[in-house]
Amino acid sequence: MNTMSSFTIGVDLGGTNLRIAAVDETGQILRVDVLATEVQRGRDRVISEMASVIRDHALQFSHQHTLLGIGVGIPGIIDLAAGTLHSAANLPGWNDYPVRSDLEKRLGVPVVLENDANCAALGEQWIGAGRGVQDLFMVTLGTGVGGGFVVNGKPWHGMSGMAGEIGHMTVIPEGLPCPCGNRGCLEQYASGTAITRMARESIANGQAPALAAAANMNSHFGARIVFETAQLGDPVAAAIFETAGQALGIALGNLINALNLPLYVVGGGVAKAWTALRPAVLAELSKRSIVFRASEPLKSRNKDTLIASTELEENAGLLGAARLPMLSEGPRACCSLAG
Amino acid sequence: MNTMSSFTIGVDLGGTNLRIAAVDETGQILRVDVLATEVQRGRDRVISEMASVIRDHALQFSHQHTLLGIGVGIPGIIDLAAGTLHSAANLPGWNDYPVRSDLEKRLGVPVVLENDANCAALGEQWIGAGRGVQDLFMVTLGTGVGGGFVVNGKPWHGMSGMAGEIGHMTVIPEGLPCPCGNRGCLEQYASGTAITRMARESIANGQAPALAAAANMNSHFGARIVFETAQLGDPVAAAIFETAGQALGIALGNLINALNLPLYVVGGGVAKAWTALRPAVLAELSKRSIVFRASEPLKSRNKDTLIASTELEENAGLLGAARLPMLSEGPRACCSLAG
Repeated sequence: MNTMSSFTIGVDLGGTNLRIAAVDETGQILRVDVLATEVQRGRDRVISEMASVIRDHALQFSHQHTLLGIGVGIPGIIDLAAGTLHSAANLPGWNDYPVRSDLEKRLGVPVVLENDANCAALGEQWIGAGRGVQDLFMVTLGTGVGGGFVVNGKPWHGMSGMAGEIGHMTVIPEGLPCPCGNRGCLEQYASGTAITRMARESIANGQAPALAAAANMNSHFGARIVFETAQLGDPVAAAIFETAGQALGIALGNLINALNLPLYVVGGGVAKAWTALRPAVLAELSKRSIVFRASEPLKSRNKDTLIASTELEENAGLLGAARLPMLSEGPRACCSLAG
Repeated sequence: MNTMSSFTIGVDLGGTNLRIAAVDETGQILRVDVLATEVQRGRDRVISEMASVIRDHALQFSHQHTLLGIGVGIPGIIDLAAGTLHSAANLPGWNDYPVRSDLEKRLGVPVVLENDANCAALGEQWIGAGRGVQDLFMVTLGTGVGGGFVVNGKPWHGMSGMAGEIGHMTVIPEGLPCPCGNRGCLEQYASGTAITRMARESIANGQAPALAAAANMNSHFGARIVFETAQLGDPVAAAIFETAGQALGIALGNLINALNLPLYVVGGGVAKAWTALRPAVLAELSKRSIVFRASEPLKSRNKDTLIASTELEENAGLLGAARLPMLSEGPRACCSLAG
């Protein structure tokens, strides 16, 4: 009998950073490496470097633990059946690339691909804000807005892997134009990009002295600085988060009415400003979501709708990627680690 | 070996009509009875009459077919685990009533309860617009607007049976107030009630001579008459359906982005006007839903998002109710038909 504990290797492949971690079956990170993705050096270079670090992790821990497989989270549309990346905005030249078979050939270990937002949702469900809950939705507020579902403890993909595209939900029908072709998408109000844009507009209008001063002092002006300015009591910065929170509240209220899930997790970098977003989100939900309110009388039966911010923060996607091979239906054909 | 074919009895309990049908395993209706619900005579009277007709159906077909159970569709919030009706707007005095155990005691046959919109969705998935599809959403446009999901061929309830409440999705944040407490709910634009209201407003403004004439000629002025007026070429009536279709398109676009299901079915009485609604629905989807459009390049892999109108029409809920006992995980304790 083999009583060795098992581990997996998770990969969070972003447009900027490539993060790789060996993770044991309890969610403990055994080792993590963070590399620059260096997209400009080409796909093969990125994949070779990724494979090399994965091999390092595998060799380091394989004598103590059984390697179940590799999980890779990618910010793009994935053909799950084929194991190919269909397209990813931040990974030019990767379209229709068979990530799974290439990595499996290089490593001789089963590889599972997943959209990055679905990975983040899975990570939270496993050992984050969703511990003990089987079904949740996670919205990721970053440069853009994405989202992912976990149903029965597994990622839920929809028909072609595109479920969770809440960033392009219409929250204001005649609102701001979005590059997607729509108007009034959530992403135009609640992304880091939108928060920065609203702050710059206020500065340009001469109505935001505190934000103007903060922008002058910081070469990397963005949502983080806007949040810090709001925390110092600036009403203009606070109003920007109120606008973002209202848009998020409309979108989450629509999802809550449609889906009646027990938990909605707010993550991504902008979730660091959750204290500034939260009041407007909850005010909109109380006003707009009949299911959010209806859960009140059912609270005695543990049927209330919960809204929480991320617990795993920037590790949500990485840990979710590591979780993927633990959910697979047993190993596929290829299973020994190639040297 | 028992080689008798099986049947079930479906009940569609509306606020106005009570419809009961014996249905075989292929979806063939063996017999249907339509009664007035007579809510004012009290719950016990309605249930007694329902039980009496069910018993008739059971006795008529039980010598040829095996009765698998009774499925009951109810327009309200159901506690599925307890088998009780939590509340139903059109059934005063029925709150917290244990429909399942009462019917099972009276009949000695397993009973399955379900929300009426979920029943309609299940009926369409079984033998209607969703034949051959495992996952769909159905929106029901009637006096109000409801909806239901089928996932893996079964009703999908959410945490507490309230999934599918698309009628109170916010489509216009500063739009018309809704009795639910929100503003700009889909129901305020795309229900039969809303279509009738918009028509009456146009008549009151003196801007709708054709609708005014139609209203004078018909004592029961409503969405059906507005549709007939639109079909005769009246631009005011057509514009009302365009407004309704735009609201429905925003709501469906949001669902398509979030869920990426293969099929969305439009049903309920107002779906008879689908030809008038359809152009605006599809125009909004093309503009607003990145997932609806993204399915285009995937069409070669049968990954396009389909929008269809109901095929079963007023029988969708009744047939879906009859389907319920066929999905159950084997019979529960009580199983012989009481006399």
